[in-house]
Amino acid sequence: MSAADQPEPGVLAGPIAALLAQIDGVPVIAEPTTVRRRSRDFFWYSPILSAQLAGKSADVIVTPRNEEEVVRVARACVRHGVPLTPRGGGTGNYGQAVPLERGALIDFSAMDKILWSKPGALRVEPGAKMHDIDAALRPAGWELRMHPSTKRTATIGGFVAGGSGGVGSIAYGGLRDPGNILAARIVTLEREPRVIELRGDAAQKINRAFGTTGLITALEMPLAPAWPWVDAIVAFDDFLEAVEAGRQIALADGVVKKLLSAITWPIPRDFREIGGFCPDGKSLLIAMIAEPSLESFRAVLAGRGAVTYEAPCLEGAGETPLYEYCWNHTTLHVLKRDRGVTYLQCLFPHDRLLPLVARMVATFGDEVLHHLEFSRFAGHITASALPILRYTSAERLDEIIAAYEEAGVMVANPHVFTLEDGSRYRRADADQLGFKAEVDPFGLLNPGKMRSFVPAKWEPA
Amino acid sequence: MSAADQPEPGVLAGPIAALLAQIDGVPVIAEPTTVRRRSRDFFWYSPILSAQLAGKSADVIVTPRNEEEVVRVARACVRHGVPLTPRGGGTGNYGQAVPLERGALIDFSAMDKILWSKPGALRVEPGAKMHDIDAALRPAGWELRMHPSTKRTATIGGFVAGGSGGVGSIAYGGLRDPGNILAARIVTLEREPRVIELRGDAAQKINRAFGTTGLITALEMPLAPAWPWVDAIVAFDDFLEAVEAGRQIALADGVVKKLLSAITWPIPRDFREIGGFCPDGKSLLIAMIAEPSLESFRAVLAGRGAVTYEAPCLEGAGETPLYEYCWNHTTLHVLKRDRGVTYLQCLFPHDRLLPLVARMVATFGDEVLHHLEFSRFAGHITASALPILRYTSAERLDEIIAAYEEAGVMVANPHVFTLEDGSRYRRADADQLGFKAEVDPFGLLNPGKMRSFVPAKWEPA
Repeated sequence: MSAADQPEPGVLAGPIAALLAQIDGVPVIAEPTTVRRRSRDFFWYSPILSAQLAGKSADVIVTPRNEEEVVRVARACVRHGVPLTPRGGGTGNYGQAVPLERGALIDFSAMDKILWSKPGALRVEPGAKMHDIDAALRPAGWELRMHPSTKRTATIGGFVAGGSGGVGSIAYGGLRDPGNILAARIVTLEREPRVIELRGDAAQKINRAFGTTGLITALEMPLAPAWPWVDAIVAFDDFLEAVEAGRQIALADGVVKKLLSAITWPIPRDFREIGGFCPDGKSLLIAMIAEPSLESFRAVLAGRGAVTYEAPCLEGAGETPLYEYCWNHTTLHVLKRDRGVTYLQCLFPHDRLLPLVARMVATFGDEVLHHLEFSRFAGHITASALPILRYTSAERLDEIIAAYEEAGVMVANPHVFTLEDGSRYRRADADQLGFKAEVDPFGLLNPGKMRSFVPAKWEPA
Repeated sequence: MSAADQPEPGVLAGPIAALLAQIDGVPVIAEPTTVRRRSRDFFWYSPILSAQLAGKSADVIVTPRNEEEVVRVARACVRHGVPLTPRGGGTGNYGQAVPLERGALIDFSAMDKILWSKPGALRVEPGAKMHDIDAALRPAGWELRMHPSTKRTATIGGFVAGGSGGVGSIAYGGLRDPGNILAARIVTLEREPRVIELRGDAAQKINRAFGTTGLITALEMPLAPAWPWVDAIVAFDDFLEAVEAGRQIALADGVVKKLLSAITWPIPRDFREIGGFCPDGKSLLIAMIAEPSLESFRAVLAGRGAVTYEAPCLEGAGETPLYEYCWNHTTLHVLKRDRGVTYLQCLFPHDRLLPLVARMVATFGDEVLHHLEFSRFAGHITASALPILRYTSAERLDEIIAAYEEAGVMVANPHVFTLEDGSRYRRADADQLGFKAEVDPFGLLNPGKMRSFVPAKWEPA
């Protein structure tokens, strides 16, 4: 029996009441508006997910303050067969944190401590915001290697459980790359929950698994030297010029950088706050360059494009670092004006980057507006892309995805909520699937997200 | 008239005497044994250069202590038509510092001050030893981005003027890559010498020009965070396994490293001092890994090979860091036992690295023993190689070089002393050639090394 069988949303009865009775002392939120609000993330970027996930909500939120409370929640959920969906900052875009089968939402925001840090590494609780982590580390000269454009509100646990890479991936690759997650500590959803330390490769079992393979209670992450970063905007007459300049800077190993985004006009029309630096009709290259590399950055540009902005990257309250115009923040800026668009998630092959970008631009014109996020992938310089597309129908969206894939561009479909459908391989990671059977035999963790998993039947003990 | 016309080596008469009279106060070394000794470098690695450069010597050495003295030396050399050959640590291998036409040697070892350093960059006089620079910077957490295996004695000016890359190039590429030389200050050899600051791309005019395009009096170099480096040796049954493991670590952007060398057996037989860590019959992977990345390094190895050594990289007096077994130090270790070998300088294309290595190994067997130095080149992971070859004749050496080039491996011939012949392109860099006409119109700087240059006829003013 699962909480989805409960007749009345928000009614704390049956298994939920039993669960709450058993975790006495763990803070709980039952106020319906808050529960519904926190049961959502940014899935509304997708018109398809927006329809599919509308109205999905947990029954109750638990907000443990330490691992011992997480263990108690886990034990109680298994005992009463209550689904449990983990949530960090709620900045995901595929409904990662949306409970499909009601039950309890476990909100990790109260577990936000840095457990230790040393040169090159830190250990941190999952609910720490990435912005706060970097702010705490910076005086010692360190920062996280990579973060999403939502760094301000995203938690480290949510990033590892639901993200893949972002700002910094031009230097370090993605979370999947060896060394980018050092270790994860998790609590299992067994009759008697275990606490397991997953080190090195083993930590990949919880990477981008949407919390289906264990409740993360601590992460050990590698750190990067915290350069004084400079935000820069370079304007180009033509998008492909911006792409080529970006690629050359990406390939210049002597230029230390954290972000390189080539953004086609007319997307920058919607960059209201920085409109003065986005000339009409110009495509942009947005970059974060280490201050000592700035002169070399300009040397590689070699006069191409016009530098319209160059200033220290500021991340304080009320300040907008340029990375908040890149990665999936780009989509947000356009959506603010025009709810008729959505986006894709692509990875261009490194050996055919420019011709394929040119081909996609030529094929789809204004229907798909490109912005490339230069990244290292498996050791090669290439570009992720989250093109903004004019949404007409699900069929047309599928057609466009098929055309990209047919051309050799990998697509991680962001209009689906299961791990399998959103994967470039259209299947669950074998290690994660196998691991889930060990750690969540009854399929109570974020149910519905790993659809290949066949749970054991839950019965009262 | 040039000093090469002087009848008696070591006789300080004619133009040399006139030169010395004009630079009164600048320290001079005229003692013949010292002059002859410092007129040499490590060109004897090549049997061909060994014969060609035997007996070449300057008449006198000048050792200026500051830029003003360099200017006085330059002015006096031009006035009296005396060739002037700059020298750093004398660790070059192609006779970079060997005066072909006698005259004066300008030894920069007395100009060894760090002028300033700040996070990410330093400005330094050319004669500073790279080892000393790193030792001075380390307390502040910085180090040079790259250095040759001869770091202990090589000067920064000599490295920039006569090198190309080395330990650190796996992260930052080579000196030719944008950002790896920030600026150079030079003194020209005109009737009235100028002091010129070359910034950014312009600094490439003196990069690997053997000092033919100006006397370097200061360099501004980028710095890298000084990780606690760990030296590691991994032993493999088969050389190609070591190469493949090295390539995978090279491609793992999350693993911070400074050196990755794959060395075929039987080369390690000659690594006497570390023989205990070099099992009989095993090919090696030698690595420098940032301590926080060590666990990830092992994860990428995934059990392949046997780690025989792992300890902090020690560079103090009497200590031998593992990079002193790599790059061109490898050749030195074999030469100590067997003077019948020499070496090549290759760059494998990044997109055919493994097949071409396999092919060269199969083609040449024991005649050419390979060691690959993984590097970034133009943004791609590939490998430099300085294979050790059994020398039989100049003809056979040319045959081997031709076979490598024919297969698509680039060769920078280390058995020639001119810039053109040692270049992969067999011609002088156009910018350097043009610049030389401006800064050294009479061809007095290291004459004979840039053979495409046609000097103006020198006459007394």
